[in-house]
Amino acid sequence: MKNLFGGPGRVSGLVMRVFQCLFAASSIGIMVSSSGFSTSTAFCYLIASMGIQFLWSFALACLDMHALRIKKDLQNHLLVSLFAVGDWVTSILSLAAACSSAGVVVLYAKDTQLCQAQKTLNCEGFQIAIAMAFISWFYLAISSNVMFWLMASS
Amino acid sequence: MKNLFGGPGRVSGLVMRVFQCLFAASSIGIMVSSSGFSTSTAFCYLIASMGIQFLWSFALACLDMHALRIKKDLQNHLLVSLFAVGDWVTSILSLAAACSSAGVVVLYAKDTQLCQAQKTLNCEGFQIAIAMAFISWFYLAISSNVMFWLMASS
Repeated sequence: MKNLFGGPGRVSGLVMRVFQCLFAASSIGIMVSSSGFSTSTAFCYLIASMGIQFLWSFALACLDMHALRIKKDLQNHLLVSLFAVGDWVTSILSLAAACSSAGVVVLYAKDTQLCQAQKTLNCEGFQIAIAMAFISWFYLAISSNVMFWLMASS
Repeated sequence: MKNLFGGPGRVSGLVMRVFQCLFAASSIGIMVSSSGFSTSTAFCYLIASMGIQFLWSFALACLDMHALRIKKDLQNHLLVSLFAVGDWVTSILSLAAACSSAGVVVLYAKDTQLCQAQKTLNCEGFQIAIAMAFISWFYLAISSNVMFWLMASS
């Protein structure tokens, strides 16, 4: 198996996982602390989806750290396939959550001007939380592509 | 290069492209004919994104048909890389459009009950158009993964 940037059991892979965890956690934190998030199902789904992504990335970050400490090679076909499928499913869920929330925020802020009319809606908070979710998805998409590449080329 | 199901220049690949075109075109048709679609930016974005997907899939369907007729092998590294990148970008745009529209429809139908209150909104039309977009994305995702697999394994 090739030794790609961001592969499992490498420092670059661990850094990716840590970024995914950080941005997913901050997305959840900012969304939960924004008033009026429960008005839309999409925002609740974003929190759930970012929660799943946080757990997945945290588990893989721990595994990477363990592999780096005991200098174990994680690049066998079974493990890489498992990571690739998990990453693919999680990244689709995250992108879906971020996009559906973005659709609702654009409706609130631009199409209906609800953000200006209803001061109880913290639209800036929603926007920052969604931006964090997109950044977290971006790092996950890189990991996902690297895993898929490793799986296909093995 | 492996001779995978759904690869370029194969009958299965052509069938996938035809399905992508059909579902993208019906999604555009149903969305445009649903009254009130212009109330949300997400629905307009769905039409634009399905338009791009239709053009991309139609071009590749023509190429597949031509390759099948003159029995030309399309599986060289440069062409497959081009198809893989194009498919990946188009599939992300389509998924983003379908999900953002789905977020808005859930808000209309469930969170605010706007569908029942405003009879000018054709919510059923929106839902069918979004379902078509998801089916079209599903076929594109299969093609995209096949192309990526071919690119990585060559």
